[in-house]
Amino acid sequence: MNFLSDTTAPAYPALIEAIARANEGFAPSYGADAISARVEARLKDLFETDLKVVFAVSGTAANALALSVLCPSDAMVLCHDEAHIHRDERGAPEFFTGGAKLLPLPGAHGKIDPEALDDALNQWPTDFVHAPPPAVLSLSQLNEAGCAYSLDELAALTGQARARDLRVHMDGARFASALAGLGCSPAQMTWKSGVDVLCLGATKTGALAAEAVILFPSVMDRFARLQARQKRAGHMAPKMRYIAAQLDAWLDDGLWLDLASRANRAATRLAEGLTAIAGVSLAHPVNGNEVFARLDPAVAERLQAAGAGFYAWPDGSARFVASWCTTDAEIGALLEAAR
Amino acid sequence: MNFLSDTTAPAYPALIEAIARANEGFAPSYGADAISARVEARLKDLFETDLKVVFAVSGTAANALALSVLCPSDAMVLCHDEAHIHRDERGAPEFFTGGAKLLPLPGAHGKIDPEALDDALNQWPTDFVHAPPPAVLSLSQLNEAGCAYSLDELAALTGQARARDLRVHMDGARFASALAGLGCSPAQMTWKSGVDVLCLGATKTGALAAEAVILFPSVMDRFARLQARQKRAGHMAPKMRYIAAQLDAWLDDGLWLDLASRANRAATRLAEGLTAIAGVSLAHPVNGNEVFARLDPAVAERLQAAGAGFYAWPDGSARFVASWCTTDAEIGALLEAAR
Amino acid sequence: MNFLSDTTAPAYPALIEAIARANEGFAPSYGADAISARVEARLKDLFETDLKVVFAVSGTAANALALSVLCPSDAMVLCHDEAHIHRDERGAPEFFTGGAKLLPLPGAHGKIDPEALDDALNQWPTDFVHAPPPAVLSLSQLNEAGCAYSLDELAALTGQARARDLRVHMDGARFASALAGLGCSPAQMTWKSGVDVLCLGATKTGALAAEAVILFPSVMDRFARLQARQKRAGHMAPKMRYIAAQLDAWLDDGLWLDLASRANRAATRLAEGLTAIAGVSLAHPVNGNEVFARLDPAVAERLQAAGAGFYAWPDGSARFVASWCTTDAEIGALLEAAR
Amino acid sequence: MNFLSDTTAPAYPALIEAIARANEGFAPSYGADAISARVEARLKDLFETDLKVVFAVSGTAANALALSVLCPSDAMVLCHDEAHIHRDERGAPEFFTGGAKLLPLPGAHGKIDPEALDDALNQWPTDFVHAPPPAVLSLSQLNEAGCAYSLDELAALTGQARARDLRVHMDGARFASALAGLGCSPAQMTWKSGVDVLCLGATKTGALAAEAVILFPSVMDRFARLQARQKRAGHMAPKMRYIAAQLDAWLDDGLWLDLASRANRAATRLAEGLTAIAGVSLAHPVNGNEVFARLDPAVAERLQAAGAGFYAWPDGSARFVASWCTTDAEIGALLEAAR
Repeated sequence: MNFLSDTTAPAYPALIEAIARANEGFAPSYGADAISARVEARLKDLFETDLKVVFAVSGTAANALALSVLCPSDAMVLCHDEAHIHRDERGAPEFFTGGAKLLPLPGAHGKIDPEALDDALNQWPTDFVHAPPPAVLSLSQLNEAGCAYSLDELAALTGQARARDLRVHMDGARFASALAGLGCSPAQMTWKSGVDVLCLGATKTGALAAEAVILFPSVMDRFARLQARQKRAGHMAPKMRYIAAQLDAWLDDGLWLDLASRANRAATRLAEGLTAIAGVSLAHPVNGNEVFARLDPAVAERLQAAGAGFYAWPDGSARFVASWCTTDAEIGALLEAAR
Repeated sequence: MNFLSDTTAPAYPALIEAIARANEGFAPSYGADAISARVEARLKDLFETDLKVVFAVSGTAANALALSVLCPSDAMVLCHDEAHIHRDERGAPEFFTGGAKLLPLPGAHGKIDPEALDDALNQWPTDFVHAPPPAVLSLSQLNEAGCAYSLDELAALTGQARARDLRVHMDGARFASALAGLGCSPAQMTWKSGVDVLCLGATKTGALAAEAVILFPSVMDRFARLQARQKRAGHMAPKMRYIAAQLDAWLDDGLWLDLASRANRAATRLAEGLTAIAGVSLAHPVNGNEVFARLDPAVAERLQAAGAGFYAWPDGSARFVASWCTTDAEIGALLEAAR
Repeated sequence: MNFLSDTTAPAYPALIEAIARANEGFAPSYGADAISARVEARLKDLFETDLKVVFAVSGTAANALALSVLCPSDAMVLCHDEAHIHRDERGAPEFFTGGAKLLPLPGAHGKIDPEALDDALNQWPTDFVHAPPPAVLSLSQLNEAGCAYSLDELAALTGQARARDLRVHMDGARFASALAGLGCSPAQMTWKSGVDVLCLGATKTGALAAEAVILFPSVMDRFARLQARQKRAGHMAPKMRYIAAQLDAWLDDGLWLDLASRANRAATRLAEGLTAIAGVSLAHPVNGNEVFARLDPAVAERLQAAGAGFYAWPDGSARFVASWCTTDAEIGALLEAAR
Repeated sequence: MNFLSDTTAPAYPALIEAIARANEGFAPSYGADAISARVEARLKDLFETDLKVVFAVSGTAANALALSVLCPSDAMVLCHDEAHIHRDERGAPEFFTGGAKLLPLPGAHGKIDPEALDDALNQWPTDFVHAPPPAVLSLSQLNEAGCAYSLDELAALTGQARARDLRVHMDGARFASALAGLGCSPAQMTWKSGVDVLCLGATKTGALAAEAVILFPSVMDRFARLQARQKRAGHMAPKMRYIAAQLDAWLDDGLWLDLASRANRAATRLAEGLTAIAGVSLAHPVNGNEVFARLDPAVAERLQAAGAGFYAWPDGSARFVASWCTTDAEIGALLEAAR
């Protein structure tokens, strides 16, 4: 009954097999290998556009690298108050940008409130020398409440940003789960909705350690800078082929969406089961592979007594994360323990 | 005939098998897993001392993280003019330290000249508010000329550093090759010789991506800071067990030294073969798995025509790197082409 | 009718005369002169304690230098949402600390709400590697709403900070006005109330450009680091005697409190006059030399038509700042225009 | 007999009188005042070109601000091994640039050797992702050996830089002395010789604290960034008029060159007198207001016994600095003591 995190789950075996297959003979270092090139080509097909990409081994690295080419050191990133970049990355965005400010904004269900965004943009003008001007809007899809912005919500927020010449970053650590939930195309959920840079995470959806920082055409001119920052941060792994091999297998034949859908279905089943139990209610809608539930103390105690793995969240709810390998048996056992 | 780099070579298959074995069930994230703990225990045995360790996926990351806990942002690292941290890491040490200065020092065969070190220590006093004081001496073992400091040389340099209260960092991207060459113990080549922090690299000796930053007891009190910096730099990989698994297999039953010895023997055979050819001489002694040779233009042309892979080095020599998988046949082919 | 800011006012002439007197013969550079030493001695007397001090030419510099020796680069400063360090220093604290985070907290009248502080301290634990831990509480006295914390309020907030091992910084750009308002001793309003570092500003109270960063005994061991940061930031002015001379004259014979009291009295008279006018109310209590008033549109228009100088504040109020040279005639003219 | 530094000398009284005159009524803050505008206009006339300028209170600040808008954080500044920015600014350039590297180059008499520059440009290519590319060439005029580049030397070095797309920074802490020595126009010694940014120092030539960072047309598009950096570094002094007033008086009617010429003449007389003494020789030509002399131990002892103020320089010479107020009597006394 381990629902602690999708990062405690094992990797999908086919990705390790891909690593083993990639281990043939010599290959150019630092991302100049053939598998890296193939992944880039796959991503272009998938996102229906030209793009540039570098790889990294953590979402924190991917986000911070992305922000470092979008936000000057004396400017500001607007994000949700609960955003991973603000709460869970030990100041990596501040570090990689050279001291930019992150301005936390409120909003229900982990989504930035459009009025709060408007208010912030009015309070922090872009031409005032005495304050860091807003330069980037960062959106998480899925966000930290397990929710996804609808395409309309995305377009509205990125439109507000664009009107002030901000760039838009999407933290897609659970991008596949959000996409599977929304049922739209990768292009629709990103550049067609006004996103300039996507951090596409595979680690939480079955990879060992593989994240991609994708520059869409609107900011592709920053690719040389992104590579320089990747190197300077120690994230240009010498034998890049082993990261690329994971992404190559992950994107192959829709595996990535299949793994995300499995996790999403497990979360949905879990949410349905939990809400049927007295003393349990959902804190947020379930749009992906995470369930945030408010538990009566008795329920929480029963779960803990049974050894169920989940986290008490700062907002008072309990977080349950499903992954590609969550089984019906595990869900059943958890529900049994909760009842 | 690929002698370009030990990072273009494949990984040793047993390490991928170890990754596959590690892929069983759930495991705590961020380095709290059992395999990470086992690697730490192995390293304590190996180095005959208490120590603390974090992992990373590139030597650049390992070096920069290590320096970031040794050198204040307004201080200075002394290193060889050809040091990897100075020449080949895109300013990562400057970035991770928050702007410390690297002072390049001269010396033959990639080794810091003791008189030059003394001169620098005299020119840059530690109590002068107007200049960054020396805080760290960084030594590469193997160094960028493929040479290893002897234990006496190490002790002399670290003694000079210690006398001025500097800390000592060892860049051990090819530590195993240096150790196999010297034939001493890991303890002798590190903390017993005055080294405070070792960056132990496995990637160039058969791993996919695995480096360890090891704090010896003299600086173990900086471990919390090191972990914070690792996280903040995006190098605390969520599924750390897959990095740990590589190191676990690498250290198992002396494999690491066996792989290094194979590469060293190949380099030695290559050097012997090359020096028997007219128009070829060694630029530096061969202390590990690298051969730096001065080639007559005719020899270089013949090699290039035959498609041999090697790098023209800035000092005018040609660099040939052997790895654990370099075969006698490849060496023979190269020598044949050179003749 | 210039109530724009106390930085648009001229300097008090005696300070320029002091500069002229200091211009005799040779004097050691960089703060080693006799006048700097005398100011330090005066400050020890005034604050009834041992202390260490460096000078700077702007409040932004003073605050950022102070924070840079209190807050590690991977940690966090807690401050009011309207704090000058957050809103009006172009990210200087982030820059000088090497990327620390500023967490904005709410509270009426520019004062941090104690419950909000408690909540933040609970949400951001000090031993969680994934987030920047709170390291500093920053308080402004006067704050950005023109209000001063009472001694009890100070003690309560610094007590909350101390219980979590945070250090306390006081932004005293208008320290003299706050002190004159409270009527307590400098010691009571600082180290006796739990303040570790005070940025004491003279510029807004009659100086040309003179700010002092004062380390109280609890953090005096950081003085060498502070000097290094002062130098590295270009704030160790070569001919420091001319900054010291301003402070020397300012502190002489109670002049500093006399100038602050003049400004405070002018603000009080202005507030009394304004609140007697229909369509005007105070947004905040007047504790020093600033008046924040809510103006009916008709009043605001009349003032603008008359050429009165004041700023429309982000919260919708109008800010009027009095200075040492504000005359009854100017106040009368403003009130006349407003009626 | 104080020849320690031109920063230990007093300010020229007319500059203090200008400060007193500037102290009339209210004036806009942060550089928007009329005197600042007048200084900018004067500088345009003087340099015969359009330009942009900000002020600062130390040469360290001016240099670091200038470099921060010329050199990306992952790039490199080439400078002389003895350059003030490398040796005497506590890493301010590294700090302000966000971690750029300074590469020290050799050369006699404090001048960068053109072959060494060429060698560095070849060793550090601009398109190699693994190393910080050279982005800026920094030249000191006067340099740290008291020497000035000739116009031909300047043109040659800046030409080498321009051919690789580097920008050129001139540290002009003693610009007036260099200009008085060369006898050319300010335009000739700067932008007409390929200089993009000049840090024009007045402090060492009679000001209290006044330096100007001047952007010539080739880099004027970076002015908004420069202002942002000035603010963020705490160098946008609120009451800027008092810095501007110093420069206004300094530039008035050729005073600046008159003060520099006085200092230069004093240095020349001192050099002539010293070289006539047995056991004294010049270490470098005297091109401005500094004399570097090699003293026999007996001479040095006699000077010290007489209480003469000068510095033992790292290269073994003795540095004597003349200023605008150095008198014939002082020079006579020093020569008397030396004999």
